[in-house]
Amino acid sequence: MEPEQCRNRGTAEPLHSPSSLSMPTQCPPLHSPSSLSMPTQCPLLQELQNLASKHPNIIIIPLEVADPASIKAAAAKVGEHLGDSGLNLLINNAGIGKPNSLDNETLESMTQVYTTNTIGPLLMGQAFLPLLKKAAQGSPGSGLSCSKAAIVNMSSYAGSIEDMYVWDFGQVVSYRCSKAALNMLSKCQSLAYKEHGILCVALHPGWVQTDMGSAAGSFKVRDLLSMVWENLMV
Amino acid sequence: MEPEQCRNRGTAEPLHSPSSLSMPTQCPPLHSPSSLSMPTQCPLLQELQNLASKHPNIIIIPLEVADPASIKAAAAKVGEHLGDSGLNLLINNAGIGKPNSLDNETLESMTQVYTTNTIGPLLMGQAFLPLLKKAAQGSPGSGLSCSKAAIVNMSSYAGSIEDMYVWDFGQVVSYRCSKAALNMLSKCQSLAYKEHGILCVALHPGWVQTDMGSAAGSFKVRDLLSMVWENLMV
Repeated sequence: MEPEQCRNRGTAEPLHSPSSLSMPTQCPPLHSPSSLSMPTQCPLLQELQNLASKHPNIIIIPLEVADPASIKAAAAKVGEHLGDSGLNLLINNAGIGKPNSLDNETLESMTQVYTTNTIGPLLMGQAFLPLLKKAAQGSPGSGLSCSKAAIVNMSSYAGSIEDMYVWDFGQVVSYRCSKAALNMLSKCQSLAYKEHGILCVALHPGWVQTDMGSAAGSFKVRDLLSMVWENLMV
Repeated sequence: MEPEQCRNRGTAEPLHSPSSLSMPTQCPPLHSPSSLSMPTQCPLLQELQNLASKHPNIIIIPLEVADPASIKAAAAKVGEHLGDSGLNLLINNAGIGKPNSLDNETLESMTQVYTTNTIGPLLMGQAFLPLLKKAAQGSPGSGLSCSKAAIVNMSSYAGSIEDMYVWDFGQVVSYRCSKAALNMLSKCQSLAYKEHGILCVALHPGWVQTDMGSAAGSFKVRDLLSMVWENLMV
């Protein structure tokens, strides 16, 4: 498990409908990690800002996933940008980890990690649901996909009770519990939102080169997003 | 899923070593749900107090599982009563539920349920670990059992991502997430505490006649505890 390098990325990446934001087809479908409370040491922030300066269809929206008011404000801003269009894909990628063992976990650590990793995606789903519904209603066909409307929750193998991924490398109990709960939340969302035509999945992204995963990650965020896009499109 | 009838039972039942507390063999192995912050409407409290008044080896110790200081104080008191003996069995049965759906879950509800149902058992395990270790060290044999030293976390089928027990009856997202996380915690405890000779398990107790389960439950607490005792003893 990666040590905590960035306490709260405070990010989520709503991949907007290419059509509704007039994204050129040659542009990779990567949008809008948000910037509120983003720690200055996060190397991806500068990269994102550089990208946004070159592509006006990339809009950076402030978001703190542990703050319900911030989530609602972000959803409202996304709605303003999308106008009559819906939101095709919401990726809840904000996550934190604490390198704690079972012996030194605390109430505060458990609460903080759960708030960002589990409660955040719940509240994000609630806030963006109207925009996701709108996208689903405007998309033909009955199949579920992220080209229609989808929520992708970035989970982790570390949340698998059966596998107990890299236990000997790091117990990270607060992280494991939050990801097991996130897997449950994803199942709840999938059952509740199916009737609205919204696909909901939890993904183990592997070891990605982020501020949490460090440069030692196996692959880049861009590669991960391409895989998501390719595998969840119909 | 049972509606919330009792916001926080604030209870845990450390089943003390019969030998260390000189429990007569004819007395059922049921000890010490604690009374701090116990809501007066909980029908089991009076029953417990009546039982304690008849059996001086039953000691009621105040405990609020959402309060780390209360947990530490309770563990210290149990230690005083046990003297040189260890604690054979800790049952984390405190639990709360909120009848919320995915649409109306809140940050506060998610946090409160997680604190009692998941963080509480974590902190209880930490605080009582020295007493459990002592019991394990004083018990012959290498097998794990609750006659040696054990933690039993009362979980629920509702925490099974595969089964999604009674989903159509109640979404209770905060409860399901907390129990999925409790299952993960139990696995973490089982891996970490095995070397100390401590058995750690999560149990789905069924529908029990408690303040949460109401009188509509399928069986009584006493029957449940007898089943635990019989099935987890070597």
